[in-house]
Amino acid sequence: MSSSVVQGVLAGEVLTASRLMRDLDDGSPSALLALKELYRHGGRSRVVGVTGSPGSGKSTLVSALVRLLRQAGKRVGVVAIDPTSPFSGGAILGDRVRMQEHASDPGVFIRSLATRGHLGGLTRSTADVVTVLDAMGFDVVLVETVGVGQDEVEIARSAHTTVVVMVPGLGDEVQAIKAGILEVADILAVNKADRPGADRTVRDLEMVVPGKSSGGWRPPVLRTVATSGEGIPELWAAVEEHQRTGTQGATALQRERARAEHLFLDILHDRLGRVVDAHLRRGGGLEERVTRLVERSADPYTLAEEVLSEIVRL
Amino acid sequence: MSSSVVQGVLAGEVLTASRLMRDLDDGSPSALLALKELYRHGGRSRVVGVTGSPGSGKSTLVSALVRLLRQAGKRVGVVAIDPTSPFSGGAILGDRVRMQEHASDPGVFIRSLATRGHLGGLTRSTADVVTVLDAMGFDVVLVETVGVGQDEVEIARSAHTTVVVMVPGLGDEVQAIKAGILEVADILAVNKADRPGADRTVRDLEMVVPGKSSGGWRPPVLRTVATSGEGIPELWAAVEEHQRTGTQGATALQRERARAEHLFLDILHDRLGRVVDAHLRRGGGLEERVTRLVERSADPYTLAEEVLSEIVRL
Repeated sequence: MSSSVVQGVLAGEVLTASRLMRDLDDGSPSALLALKELYRHGGRSRVVGVTGSPGSGKSTLVSALVRLLRQAGKRVGVVAIDPTSPFSGGAILGDRVRMQEHASDPGVFIRSLATRGHLGGLTRSTADVVTVLDAMGFDVVLVETVGVGQDEVEIARSAHTTVVVMVPGLGDEVQAIKAGILEVADILAVNKADRPGADRTVRDLEMVVPGKSSGGWRPPVLRTVATSGEGIPELWAAVEEHQRTGTQGATALQRERARAEHLFLDILHDRLGRVVDAHLRRGGGLEERVTRLVERSADPYTLAEEVLSEIVRL
Repeated sequence: MSSSVVQGVLAGEVLTASRLMRDLDDGSPSALLALKELYRHGGRSRVVGVTGSPGSGKSTLVSALVRLLRQAGKRVGVVAIDPTSPFSGGAILGDRVRMQEHASDPGVFIRSLATRGHLGGLTRSTADVVTVLDAMGFDVVLVETVGVGQDEVEIARSAHTTVVVMVPGLGDEVQAIKAGILEVADILAVNKADRPGADRTVRDLEMVVPGKSSGGWRPPVLRTVATSGEGIPELWAAVEEHQRTGTQGATALQRERARAEHLFLDILHDRLGRVVDAHLRRGGGLEERVTRLVERSADPYTLAEEVLSEIVRL
């Protein structure tokens, strides 16, 4: 299977790529072989993360970006991370509906991902999909996540450029989240900027935005109205500007190295967890250990050390 | 150090417990020794998770629950998870301010946690703090998280009873998140129930709530106005009802086993990740591998397998 799949994905075949993504989700070994090969053909797509609080209009903004990029003749992949529980594995209908306008466009590929319930599962699946889209030759890959929660921040961190979307007039708590997520932002978009309070939000953000980085970049605060398309060309211009700044010299290499290291360690942790869990469940003493924990005749820290010394050779 | 710390925590000494939590954050080996001992003295606190979207009024609701429990003479520990980035490690000022009224009450212990930037770091720190609070003899430990993101769902899952807080009249996306998080809910609280649309939200939720579990529990949908305290006694009555239902027979044991297994595997994964990362960084070939990835002369999946076969003995 592997080589024809690889050829098909490299040729941009949507059906082949969709099947591969599904097979990767199912843990197919031959799909993994294909993915390995595809990774080595990648590295050309610009990956742009778009993250923000629920209700910030991220999906509409992503859709507006897709429209703009398509008008410029760019091929665009979209990965939308559903903030649903690991239990339901469901998808957000709303997002899908909003993306409908691009559904029949062969220059656009949209993939929704739900969390999988395994440690690191979400970041892993996202990385896999980005690898496939990259190999398919998409010029731009937009990764949309909800900007709350560690996994989501990790995903934002894996993009070349991260846009954080905010809206005017939300409560204290949300403002605080913004403050937390500011440090992953390369660009800040105040969306729904036609609402009251937009000026104040822009001013507040400009005051808290970090200063110029070593690479000479200071995150700009832009206004957008995703529903009307207002500010979207300026937003994309800022993304391109960031990529130009970011692709000169040491900064670009450092960012590429950080991205690669992050991906590698994430995959490694995921594998480690799976291998060790499988071992413990299949005769490796999980049941007995859980019994001792429930009885409080052992503690989980000591039991973890026990398992580590049994199975890790360092 | 260890035995005097253990004695101090078991005697409920706030200063000793605070120092221990700080030492645990710093990765102190003697603090870990104390934690191991403390785990074996625990198991008495009822752990109640309170989770919900940003802006749902969770903190105010937690504060109202603390007030109610104090009036009933219960000692209460609170763990508030700050949804800030792993980069800033900051805390939400708003939450702290809202909790101020309990700050001088010796029957209340409040601990804020920020994410730590390490895989599983947040769930781990939370579990450590709950272990300490449990050993201190708090009757109830309230764990407040933002209900978006996989880590947060994992934390909710580790409680005896999980309350999901919602508000009337939010957008589609937020409704979808609710749908996703429904499956971790033992109790649903529609907060800010004095707002327009509350009736509809309650009705909508009642339609989507899962049916009775094997243990005979069906999550009730309750109205609360946390700012005025309306509905808070009924909410707590539901928590107690859930714990009574949940503490009879097989269901209770199953839930205890699931909680213990979850904690153990989480600690194990965290340790594995740390040990392996430290090895790779200290002469284990991380730099060289990252270089090969950036050059696309290797793929991260194969490199992860390489490392696994080098260090895992199974």
